[in-house]
This record gives sequence, structure tokens and C-alpha cells, in this order.
Amino acid sequence: MLLKNTFAQTPPMGWNSYDYYDTTVNEAQVKANAEYMAKYLKPHGYEYIIVDIQWSDPNAGTDRKNCQYINFSHFNIDEYSRQLPAENRFPSSKNGAGFKPLADYIHDLGLKFGIHIMRGIPRYAAHMPLKIKGTNVTADKIADPYSISKWNPDMYGVDYQKPGAQEYYNSIFELYAECGVDFVKVDDICNTNMYRENPYSAEKEIEMIHKAILNSGRNIVLSLSPGPAVIEKAWHLEKYANMWRITDDFWDNWILLKNMFERCEVWQNHVSTGCYPDCDMIPIGWLGKGFGLERYTSFTINEQITLMTLWCIFRSPLMVGAELTKLDSETLELLTNDEVLYLIANSHGAIQIERDDTHAIWFSKDNNDDSCYIALFNLSEISKTITVSLKDIGINSHAFIRDLWKHENLDSVENIVTANVPSHGAALYKLKFCQ
Amino acid sequence: MLLKNTFAQTPPMGWNSYDYYDTTVNEAQVKANAEYMAKYLKPHGYEYIIVDIQWSDPNAGTDRKNCQYINFSHFNIDEYSRQLPAENRFPSSKNGAGFKPLADYIHDLGLKFGIHIMRGIPRYAAHMPLKIKGTNVTADKIADPYSISKWNPDMYGVDYQKPGAQEYYNSIFELYAECGVDFVKVDDICNTNMYRENPYSAEKEIEMIHKAILNSGRNIVLSLSPGPAVIEKAWHLEKYANMWRITDDFWDNWILLKNMFERCEVWQNHVSTGCYPDCDMIPIGWLGKGFGLERYTSFTINEQITLMTLWCIFRSPLMVGAELTKLDSETLELLTNDEVLYLIANSHGAIQIERDDTHAIWFSKDNNDDSCYIALFNLSEISKTITVSLKDIGINSHAFIRDLWKHENLDSVENIVTANVPSHGAALYKLKFCQ
Amino acid sequence: MLLKNTFAQTPPMGWNSYDYYDTTVNEAQVKANAEYMAKYLKPHGYEYIIVDIQWSDPNAGTDRKNCQYINFSHFNIDEYSRQLPAENRFPSSKNGAGFKPLADYIHDLGLKFGIHIMRGIPRYAAHMPLKIKGTNVTADKIADPYSISKWNPDMYGVDYQKPGAQEYYNSIFELYAECGVDFVKVDDICNTNMYRENPYSAEKEIEMIHKAILNSGRNIVLSLSPGPAVIEKAWHLEKYANMWRITDDFWDNWILLKNMFERCEVWQNHVSTGCYPDCDMIPIGWLGKGFGLERYTSFTINEQITLMTLWCIFRSPLMVGAELTKLDSETLELLTNDEVLYLIANSHGAIQIERDDTHAIWFSKDNNDDSCYIALFNLSEISKTITVSLKDIGINSHAFIRDLWKHENLDSVENIVTANVPSHGAALYKLKFCQ
Amino acid sequence: MLLKNTFAQTPPMGWNSYDYYDTTVNEAQVKANAEYMAKYLKPHGYEYIIVDIQWSDPNAGTDRKNCQYINFSHFNIDEYSRQLPAENRFPSSKNGAGFKPLADYIHDLGLKFGIHIMRGIPRYAAHMPLKIKGTNVTADKIADPYSISKWNPDMYGVDYQKPGAQEYYNSIFELYAECGVDFVKVDDICNTNMYRENPYSAEKEIEMIHKAILNSGRNIVLSLSPGPAVIEKAWHLEKYANMWRITDDFWDNWILLKNMFERCEVWQNHVSTGCYPDCDMIPIGWLGKGFGLERYTSFTINEQITLMTLWCIFRSPLMVGAELTKLDSETLELLTNDEVLYLIANSHGAIQIERDDTHAIWFSKDNNDDSCYIALFNLSEISKTITVSLKDIGINSHAFIRDLWKHENLDSVENIVTANVPSHGAALYKLKFCQ
Repeated sequence: MLLKNTFAQTPPMGWNSYDYYDTTVNEAQVKANAEYMAKYLKPHGYEYIIVDIQWSDPNAGTDRKNCQYINFSHFNIDEYSRQLPAENRFPSSKNGAGFKPLADYIHDLGLKFGIHIMRGIPRYAAHMPLKIKGTNVTADKIADPYSISKWNPDMYGVDYQKPGAQEYYNSIFELYAECGVDFVKVDDICNTNMYRENPYSAEKEIEMIHKAILNSGRNIVLSLSPGPAVIEKAWHLEKYANMWRITDDFWDNWILLKNMFERCEVWQNHVSTGCYPDCDMIPIGWLGKGFGLERYTSFTINEQITLMTLWCIFRSPLMVGAELTKLDSETLELLTNDEVLYLIANSHGAIQIERDDTHAIWFSKDNNDDSCYIALFNLSEISKTITVSLKDIGINSHAFIRDLWKHENLDSVENIVTANVPSHGAALYKLKFCQ
Repeated sequence: MLLKNTFAQTPPMGWNSYDYYDTTVNEAQVKANAEYMAKYLKPHGYEYIIVDIQWSDPNAGTDRKNCQYINFSHFNIDEYSRQLPAENRFPSSKNGAGFKPLADYIHDLGLKFGIHIMRGIPRYAAHMPLKIKGTNVTADKIADPYSISKWNPDMYGVDYQKPGAQEYYNSIFELYAECGVDFVKVDDICNTNMYRENPYSAEKEIEMIHKAILNSGRNIVLSLSPGPAVIEKAWHLEKYANMWRITDDFWDNWILLKNMFERCEVWQNHVSTGCYPDCDMIPIGWLGKGFGLERYTSFTINEQITLMTLWCIFRSPLMVGAELTKLDSETLELLTNDEVLYLIANSHGAIQIERDDTHAIWFSKDNNDDSCYIALFNLSEISKTITVSLKDIGINSHAFIRDLWKHENLDSVENIVTANVPSHGAALYKLKFCQ
Repeated sequence: MLLKNTFAQTPPMGWNSYDYYDTTVNEAQVKANAEYMAKYLKPHGYEYIIVDIQWSDPNAGTDRKNCQYINFSHFNIDEYSRQLPAENRFPSSKNGAGFKPLADYIHDLGLKFGIHIMRGIPRYAAHMPLKIKGTNVTADKIADPYSISKWNPDMYGVDYQKPGAQEYYNSIFELYAECGVDFVKVDDICNTNMYRENPYSAEKEIEMIHKAILNSGRNIVLSLSPGPAVIEKAWHLEKYANMWRITDDFWDNWILLKNMFERCEVWQNHVSTGCYPDCDMIPIGWLGKGFGLERYTSFTINEQITLMTLWCIFRSPLMVGAELTKLDSETLELLTNDEVLYLIANSHGAIQIERDDTHAIWFSKDNNDDSCYIALFNLSEISKTITVSLKDIGINSHAFIRDLWKHENLDSVENIVTANVPSHGAALYKLKFCQ
Repeated sequence: MLLKNTFAQTPPMGWNSYDYYDTTVNEAQVKANAEYMAKYLKPHGYEYIIVDIQWSDPNAGTDRKNCQYINFSHFNIDEYSRQLPAENRFPSSKNGAGFKPLADYIHDLGLKFGIHIMRGIPRYAAHMPLKIKGTNVTADKIADPYSISKWNPDMYGVDYQKPGAQEYYNSIFELYAECGVDFVKVDDICNTNMYRENPYSAEKEIEMIHKAILNSGRNIVLSLSPGPAVIEKAWHLEKYANMWRITDDFWDNWILLKNMFERCEVWQNHVSTGCYPDCDMIPIGWLGKGFGLERYTSFTINEQITLMTLWCIFRSPLMVGAELTKLDSETLELLTNDEVLYLIANSHGAIQIERDDTHAIWFSKDNNDDSCYIALFNLSEISKTITVSLKDIGINSHAFIRDLWKHENLDSVENIVTANVPSHGAALYKLKFCQ
């Protein structure tokens, strides 16, 4: 097994600051969410706390009505162009401590700590120019003035052919490894949507980052964003990364959720140990404060069940987007149904059996015995009976059947599995002794 | 396991008339190739004899300098629009016998028989119009006047929403099943390249054909052409077909062979029992007579080794394009190296470890023990030493190593596998006790 | 001046059957509209009566809820594949008379007669095949089985490289010339939207049709459809045709009308004697009966004024789509404002001075003196004062100004022309002694 | 007439430094070329001396084998982000004199002076940030970090919606007007090829530059680069600019020259006073020194005649790319044939009569009498007789005919004009007394 596949032997589960805080999260808020996770979610497998985009900018979010990211911002970097936390937002980072105190705090809670970065090197560093650590090269010699993001103005891409390029990436991962970072979400790299002719134009930067992680000596999970990932490059993603976004940003919108079935159908043969196509964060509970749109999720409870069922049977990473400290009991219950979450680490081979505009059926197998799983999704606007013939999927035996959402055994089935599923809802069944 | 996956439990191996005969093959020629196969190739696993395109047209190939397919040809069909062999080319088909006598002959040799069809219903039938068997519907009611092929003028696509559409496909597969057909290559269906916005526009015809095969009650292998297949629809192909072309027509041209590495890299996670991404026929030996370009393959011996190595480790179907009766001993030897062919039925999990403009490395595992396979390809114009670190692919043990092309054991290896590979050539190694 | 430019020295004005009758118009209806035109519209310049698509199909429109055009229809053709009027719809065409009696009737009213044809030769003729008049070639030898329309199933394109191709087009224009046809609208030819990579793929058919018209000896105006015409081929259209559609089908919908400003801006330098970019029929009055949607136009009176103002200053052909016999007095008045219509034949050099999302300004010059015209359009949802500085358009003198819609002189202006224009409305001014 | 159309009442003729010097031209070289022009070319109408790209960079061209433009260069700008000449290359610009001394020198020779600029504001200025003259805005407030060039790393586009944007452009044109600049070639603006979906994305910057020129009070000709210009936006170009490139960079390559016929055919209706579609510089004589490829033009003499004939009948601007001081007598003669050059200022209405893969025919009219011009081009590889029927172009009278390249009268013609034209060559005739 590739070393990088040992960094995340099952799909990562955790919390990400973006859906609630946008670019604005601060140390106290991160800690509060971590404390909640340690207490209520860790027993169910959640362990990652991820600080998302723009943590080095002291002014992030201060001009939100005009822009999400501040143009030409002089965000916090060290003499080697490496981003440091904005000290006004992360007070423990002062005096060169960086993220270490916060990471220590999170580790002490029994959790893991992750951060977001943009691909590349700060534009400002290239224009000054600043030095690259451990080299006699300056930033202008490795930065590519034509390699920019379509949506964030901070960085220039790094040209792998230039001396100092790998050293730059090594230097930033050394810093993060020293701080105790366990997970890095790299952005503008999975689909570089600025470049229509080649959305996978950052291929070599993915390789440099992979090498920089191995070079750091720390088991840092590599998560790539944004999507949609390029299916033609699945083999490359599987070789160098642990998870990669298969859609553009996902939010609490039924159209986006319905579309995820198509994305999962494309990627269904590409889920394996250490390799996780990523359906993006789970936008339930309270969301959107940093965007100036604080709200309770627009998803109905049936839609939330559909979301969790698909993410779990497909085995997407599970990153909660909600502000955890405001989690209501229904949402908490939904996120902590152990019979459903069991699939994340204990099933494999999920495939879509059927899909049309009104329904979808998924199937997977248990890792530990000959049980299997069937998920029935109602994509239509009215309640609907959905049926799958076991023979059609090559199963010829009786089966005991259990409803994983309701925690109850049903009558055993012979030829078919059937359920009346509410509009936009789902049912998830475990079949024992099948095949 | 899906029933259709039992029709071809390993990648089909055989012969196809196209590369040598184009549209012109006749009964005597088919028989001669079948006899050769029974004698020389069957012991090594080859068993299919496929009659490719335009066998119902008595004039096929008679205006070759102007066109490959004759516009508005009145080719041989029965009263229900079902194609019958051109009697001048297939004399045994007279008096309504169809392909049965030829299929019987081939079966008696211990081989299997396959034919080519175009998706759809003859245009002529729609304009007359003719009846659909077992219905009171006529061809004009199911034919879609806007659904045509970009390169063959014979057919209109069939609209699955129309009564009689499934019955039409049922009727033709009933006829072929009665004749003893074991394999059908359906064309203009895998990539309907007429329709740029939707190259998979024949999706519903694939489903109708799949159902028609099940309805026929005969185990008919379904092969889809031409490529490139649409990777986003892998799940659909895997559900309804046995093999599908992953490239446009392949010929004896190094650029095309080199490009196949990219095609295989895209499809590497989609090879499984009953599901075979298809690299197309093997254009070696004597080729091109029907095209007016009879020639010995342009591939060098090293390129032929590269081809066979890639097709075998990737587990593509193996369909020989050469005129078998003219096979020289070197080509025969290449096609019948049992240690290499062993991978077709006895290995799995092939993945590309590396690829750049000058080399590629592939890796797969044995089905029966913990052996594995490593293929080293030199894509450059000069000979080259290619090396793979076993540790990089997660293997930490000693290995005994065997060269499968040369049938010789090499010194055991510890950390690396290395070989000096000639330009455009390949090495294929089996490693024992690895991992 | 090119001979073809003498066929239509000013933009053609008339009536077309499509907007009201779809495919179903019959002889009595054509005559009724012609009689109305002769009486009420001819004095204002309208003179063409055009029978639009599918006049040769006796069953046209009988399966309207399923299809606009009947697949594989056996419409009325002669032994040389030339379409004849459906006799059940055009009784005077019996006994081989064709359109001659109807054309004579229309000519006797002092009007001109036009018909619609699809590019190409009937598919049925190619499959039989039928003979080409005056040759020993059959239809299958000139028809291109890959050249079809995206939206009408009747024809195959004709390959200009084949002997008999020009003769086929000559034969149909001979027939139409003999019948007295003055105008032919050829469809699926200006933008062959089936072929995305080359929407002007019928270029050579345009040339053949042009030659066939010259060969016929009759001054037949050539109108090409559908749009959008390809601006890169303006020079070719200007050389071979009299008018060409610059948009897809136009209907009574504000979005389409607003978009027309962009289309006219693209084509503004391509209006000249005998060469008329065509904004399509005028969908006002009663519309849509043949479509099963009989209705009074959805355009408000202000939108109708905008339409007429743009069509007239731009100098589009003016083809009324309304059922004339049901014309109300307001619509009739709108269509017969002679001061506005005057621009069609007596102005030139129309250019757009300004356009943004809320307004547009056009300018043109009088042919006969130094007067000029200014049209002010309000594209926004509220009434709006629109102003143009005369200096900005290079005019430095005083001007007397007349409102052409209201038939009244306004105060003379010095530097600016300004008007308060209602939402979706327009003002049209004539300036005397300017510049 | 629009004021801007008075700045260039005939197509500009002159010299441009790019084809010979690339980014490296210096003051002495500019003067030497100006002196040559004053002496030998000015009598024939040439008058512009244009200093092309990168004149503010002291190091331009010093790393030519790696890059044409130096990434993150600190080129010479003033405190308001306005580029100043590199003092090491333009010594007279020292002490804040800028281009004034050089412009004065050129004016004293009776010539006009032009410079090149990139659209936008220096990236460095945005990152510092620097102030915008006459405002309290800084460069980071008007620069768009997402608006870059695909091929030059110097600038960010300017957002017209931001306060200070127009003032920035005003400030640079004030500076250039004060220096005596008569012509500005603005680059990365006509086709912003970075942005495939919208190659005319700099539309608003064109408008700002136009306003800045009017604001400067100086008659500065506005030339837009690179091409191909977007024909759909012809009206906008005609409103705001004087000339715009209709192709990508043109060099001494037959394929490019042959392609120019297609470009001219597209733009033939868009040549008018003050509005000149631009075929790019004339790469004849000695070229390429700055590119490290100094050479005599690859064009044969026949190809040079074709080039000059097309540029003159089409009425493209004529900018010589050759190093003038090295001009040989044949090239000088070619550039100074007054009978041919006469068309630049004294003809109009050029249209393409015919074009196929082997020949082209163009036609235009004299401004002063009823003479007309016919150019016959042989695009094939062998010599060829090319004939045009006068009747086909609507001319019915006798004509006296003169060969403008050979300065000789030919026999008068009646119905046709014909010439034997050498491969890749052209003939240009003036016809007197034709219609």
C-alpha cells in the first residue's frame, strides 16, 4: 500500500469552518467547536477540526459586501513567504508561535487539526521579491505570473521546473508539520477553473505538495479543492492525494443535492483505502454567518437523510459545515446514527443500480461478512414506492433486512426490496445472508 | 453477479475480419481463418470469429475508391427489416438459412461466432415502410429521422419511447440467437460522434439491446463501438455491456499506440469480470487488403511487444486483425506467448504507476497467489533504463523475478526493478513472494 | 450592380403564412390574405404573399401534438423529385397545374407570389431512387445521406460535386419560374444548426440555388433561413442572396425583441441594395392558429412601436405574420404609418450610436436630402428620458425635428435630441438641415 | 463625422520597431529609422515612427532565450504608475523629460511619433500600492487582480466601475500628449485571448482609453492589438478606435499570408474613414534581430507583391516592419510604388469577388472618378491564368486597363479581365471609364 494511503485509512470525518464562518473564523470559535466535537461527535468517529480559507488575513471579511477576498491584501507571511495566522484573530500565534498552540489544544482534546491553503506563493512575495527558505532563490524566480486563481487574488502558481519550487513547498509543509497540522485542504488545485482547456493544470503542483508532505515526515492528509475533479485524471489523484472534491461548492439546495447522484455515479469505482472522492461539506444545522446570511439549513429532514445516506454509502469524507455549538438535537441525532455511519469505515464497492429523474438505487457490501446495503432514494416531488429486484443484481438467496435509519428489523425478503420513500427522502437497508 | 457478466468471464480473445478485409469478407475467407484459429490459436485461448461490418450488402466494397459504404444501398433484409447475409458472399445463407450454417461450421471447430451490426433500423425500411415482427407497427413509427451515424449511411436510430422499438431489437436478436451467434459488436453506439453535445446519445439503445439479448435466452457477448467511450458513463457501460471501445479506430501507427497509454490510464479502474474496456483489434501481421492497401504491419517488433504487453496487463479483449492464414512464425509466436497471455485471465488490479512522455510503468496482481506483475514501457526514441522502486508502490519484501517475454528467471530483486528497454519496446516481469 | 441585386432594390414587404397557419395554410386562406393586402396594404408598399413550409404534404399538421413535421411523410412530388402542392389543400394545382393558377390569381391582384422550400432533395427520392430531370442521374447519386436538417425530416442535402446536382436545382427553379414564383424562402440553409462546427455548411447549395435562379431567367428574390446567419460569411451572403435571417425564429416575446438590438448591431454595416439582413416576420395581430395556440400578439403597443421602429430604421424586410383578415384598426395603423415606412426605401447607413441594458440609440441618413433619423429605444422596465448629443455624432448645426410616429413637428433642437420614452417603447425622429 | 475619425482620415503609414528589434529598440535606432523615413519614404506617404513594446524596461530582452518579457520586472514608472522610457535605452528621457525630446526630434523631421502600451496598470503599482494622479485613490483600488494578459506579465486590467479608473487612463494620456505622442498602439485589448468565453472582455477599457484621448486634447490615433478582432463587435471598434488587428501576429510565412484573404473577406465591409481593420506590420526586408533570428524576409518577391496588393486594395494601415537603414533597393521600390500606394488614400468599397483554395479576386472603386481596381491573386503552387467577367460584377462597358505594378497600359478590355499570374503572386489593374 502506498504510504500516503495509510494517512487516512477510512474517509475522514470532522468539522470545517467555512460553511458557517466563511473567511472569518477565530481562535475562540475554533476551540469552541473542537470542544463540542470532543464531547458529542468524537465517540461516533468525527475527529478533524479544519480552519478554512484566509486565516492569515487580519482583515478577512471586513469588506464582505464588495468582495469575499480582499484584493492585494497584505496578509501575514514570514520572511520566506509562508503564511502565518493573523494575530488579531489567532492570539496564541503571536511571537512566531504560529498554529502550534492551537494545534496542541486540539490534540489534547483527542482530535486532529487541519488547515486550508491556496496553491502557490503570495503574489506580493513575487513582486518584492522575498527569499525561498534554504535556497538562494527569490519568489519571482519560481512564481508563474500567468498562473492565477479565478476566484481568489492571493497567489501565483509555482513552476515546478524552476530551482527552488520544490523547496518552497517543502518549506511550508515543514512549518505546518512542526505546528502539528494533520490535514491540509489545498485549494484552486483540483479544478483550476481559470484554465478551461486544462482544468487539471496544477498537476505538477499536486505532485510537489505530495512530495513535500512525505518530506515533512508527518502523516498529513491531503485534500484537494475545488471540484469538479477531472475523471480522466482519477489515476493521478489516486496516486498523490487522499481526497478530492467531485463537485463545485455544495450548499443546502435540492438541485445541488440531486446533482450529486450524477457526480457519485461517475466516481463510484474510485473509492478505495486512502482515496476518497469528496462530496464536500455537509450544510445542515446553522450556516452562513460569515457570508452575512446566517440561517438554519434549507434542507428538509428528508433531504438531510438523503444527503447522509448518499455520503455514507458512497463513503465520501464527512465534514460537518454547521456551527457545532448551535447544533439542535435532531441534527445531532442525524449526524450520529452509528448504524448509518458504520458504512463509512466498514463497507465497500458501492455502485449505483439505477438512476433516472425520479429515483436512484445504490448497493454496497459489508467489509466483514456477506451482508450488503441497499439505499433507495426518491428524487421526485411526490412520495413513491421504490423497488429493486435482488435477482437483477445477482442475488438469489433469502435475506433478513434491517432499516438502518429506524433501527428496526423488517420482514425478511426473497426477491425484492421495496420501500415507500417520501419525496426527496431515502431509505437505507442492511441485508444479512444475502448471496 | 449480473447475468450479463457471466457471458464473458475473462476478456474475449479471437479474430475480427475488419483490419484485413474491410467490408468485403466472404464465407470461404471466414472459414479459412476459423480453421487456422482452431488449429493454432485455440490452444492459447483464442475462440471468437467475428464477421465485421456490411455483410448484408452484396456490393460492399465495389466502389471503394469513392466510399467505404455505399449510399442508399439496398442491402439484404427480410420482410421485418432484419439484415440477412448477402447471398453472393455467404452462399450457405441461401433459402432463408441466414448465418446458421456458417455458425454451425464454426461451432464444430470448437469456436464461437460473432457478427457486427449498426445501431438502428435500415433507413430504407422506414421510408417504405416495412413491418416490425410480432407487432402491428411499421418501421417509420420507431425510426428517428434525426438519429444517424456520422460515417455510415445505412440506419436510423430507434426511439425507445415508441411502441415496437424494443420488439424490433428483440426480433433481430431472436434471429441471431437462432442462428447461433455468440457475440455481437454493435457500432455507432458507444460514441455517437455525430452528436458532439452528447456522444452517449444512444444510451437507451444500449439498454434495449441488453434487454433483447436477455430476452433471446442466449449468452451473447455485447461489444460496443466505436470509441472513445465516455468515462462519465462508465457505470452505465458496466451495467449493460461486456466490452466497449476506449479509442477511435486503432491502427499500426506509433502515435496511436503511444496514445493508448493515456486511454488505459483513464479506464484502469474499470476492468472487472464481464466488463472490459476495449483497446480495439491488434493490427499486426498482414493487413489492409479490403482497403486497397494490403501491407505487413508498420509496427516494429518492439512496438508489437509494447502492444501485447499493454493489452495483456490492462486486460483488454484480444482480437487479432491480421489475416490468419498469412501469419508468419514471429507474429504467431508473439500472439501465443502463454506466460504473457496468462495475465488476461489470471491477473487483476492493473494500475499505471508512472507515465510521462518517455516512459510508462504498469503494475497488477495475480489472481491465484501473491505474485504481481510489472511492465516497463519505453515511449522514447532511444533505448532507456527504466526503474521502479518497490517501496514506492508499497512493497517491502524480496522478490524472485521472471521475464515473461524471454521465459527466464532473473536475479532476485530487493528494492527496485530495473530494465534496459529498447526504444518503443517493453519488458514484462512477474514478481513472486512480493509484499 | 450584380444582377441579383436588381431583384429586390428595396427591402421586400409582404405577408407570410407561418406565424398564423404553421404548416397548414390552404389556397382559400392564401387568397383571402392576398385580397386583404391588395386592398389595405399594397398602397403602403406591401406586395409579397409567401406560402411557408410544408405545402406539399397533404397531412401537414394532422399530428401536431406529437410533431410539427411528419416523419417519413410521402408528400407530393413529381417523377423528378420536385415538390408539388398538396392537392387537397391547393385544389387549383390539380392535373399538373401546380402553383400556376394561384400565382396568376395573386399577380392579378397586383401582388407577387412566394414559396418556401427546404434545401436538398426528398429523402424518399434518394431511397427509391427517382430520376433527375434532363439527366441520366438518379437522386441517390446526388443526395448526401449525412446532410440532414436538425428539425425537419424531409430532405437530404445535395452534393455540389456530383454530376446532376446543379441540374436538380435548375429543374426545381425552372418549375417554379414557370409557375410564376417571385420569391423563394429556402430553409435549413443559412444556419445549418445540425453541424455545430460549420453552421454555414450549405455554402455550396446557396451557390447552386443562386445559379439556378439566374438559369431560370426569372427575377426570383432569394431569402435564406433560419438564423442566426454567420457574420464571418457576410461577403458570401451578399454575393448570392437577397435576404438572410440574422436570428433564430422570432416571436412575440420581449426578450427576443430586446436581443434583436444585438443582432442588428452586428449586421449594421451589411445592409445595401439587394442585400438585407432579415429580422424575421412581424408577430403582431392574430397569431398561432396552426400551432394550436391562436392568440392576439403578446407584444404591448409600445413593444410593437419598438419593433416597427427598429425594423424600419435598420431596413429589415417587413413580412407581416398576422392573419390579415383579422387585423384590427390599431395594428393596421401601425403597419401603415407612411412616415415610418418611408425609411425602408429612402434611408441608408443606419448605425447604432449607443446600447446598454436599458436603452439603445440608432441613427441613419435620408437618401434624398441631408435629413437624418434618430431612433431612441427604452429597453428598461420604467419610462426613461433618453438623450443623444448631436456633437457626439459629428453634427454641429441646428435642426428642425419631426416625430414620425406622431406626425408632428417639435421644437427645433440645437445640441441634443431628447425624449421621454415609455418602458419598452421607442421614439423616431427626422432631423432636417442637420450637418 | 466622429471627432476620432478625423485623427486618421486615411490608413496610417509608417514604421514599427517590433519586427526587427522585438523588445530592445533604443533611441539611436529609432532616430536612424526616422531619418531614413524622412528621406526616402515620407514622399510616398509614410509618416509614423512607432516604438513598440517594453520601452520602459531597462532589462528588456536580456533573458531572451528564456522569456520575451521579464517576469516581475521593476520597469520604469513614475510615482503615479505611469511608464517612463528606460533611461539606459532612451538617454534623452532623463530628468523627467520622458519621450518629449525624442518626439520633438521626430516631429522636426516632419514625421509623427507613436508608442506601444499594454492595457492596464503595472502589477507592481497595485501591490505596493501607488497613488493615482489627481485622486486620493491607490492602484490596488482600480486594478483587477483577475484581469491579466496571456502573454505579458506586466499589468493588471483596470475596472471601469471603480472611482479613479478613468482618471488613471486620463493621467497616462495627459503625459503622452504632453510628450507629443501622435499614435498609441494598445495591446492585450482587441482580443484578450486569456478569456476564451469573452475575447472582447476589455470593451470598457477601450471606451476609457477613447475618452482619455479626447480628454487629452491631442489627436492621438488609437490602434488596438492583438487580433483577431471580434467581428461581432465591429460597431464598437468603429465607434472607439482607429485601427484594430484582424489577425494574430503576422510574419513572413506563406500560410499566414494566404489566411489573410479570409480575414479580409470577413472585414471587407468595415473599412471607412477613421476606421481601419489592420492586417499587421509588413515583414519584408531585414527582420528578427531582437528575437535572435536576424534574417532577410522569407517572402519571395511574388509573395511581397501579393502582400502589398492586398494591403493596398483592402486599405489596411501600412506599417513597415523592416529595419529601414538596411533596406535594399528592390524592397524600397516595392514599398514606394506610388500607383499602388494611391489606393490607400484614394479608393473605397473593396470587396472580394471570388476566393477558393487556388485564387482570389478583389475589386474596388476610385474616390475621384469612375475608375475601378481589380486585383488578381494566385494562391496556388503553379502559375495560373485568372479571369474575371466584368458582367458578373455588373460592369457593361469597355475599359482601358493599366497594370499598376508594371506602370504600363494594356490593351483595352471588353468583357473580361484576365492575367497569367505567377504562383503566390498578384496583378493589380486600374480600369478607366468602366461604369
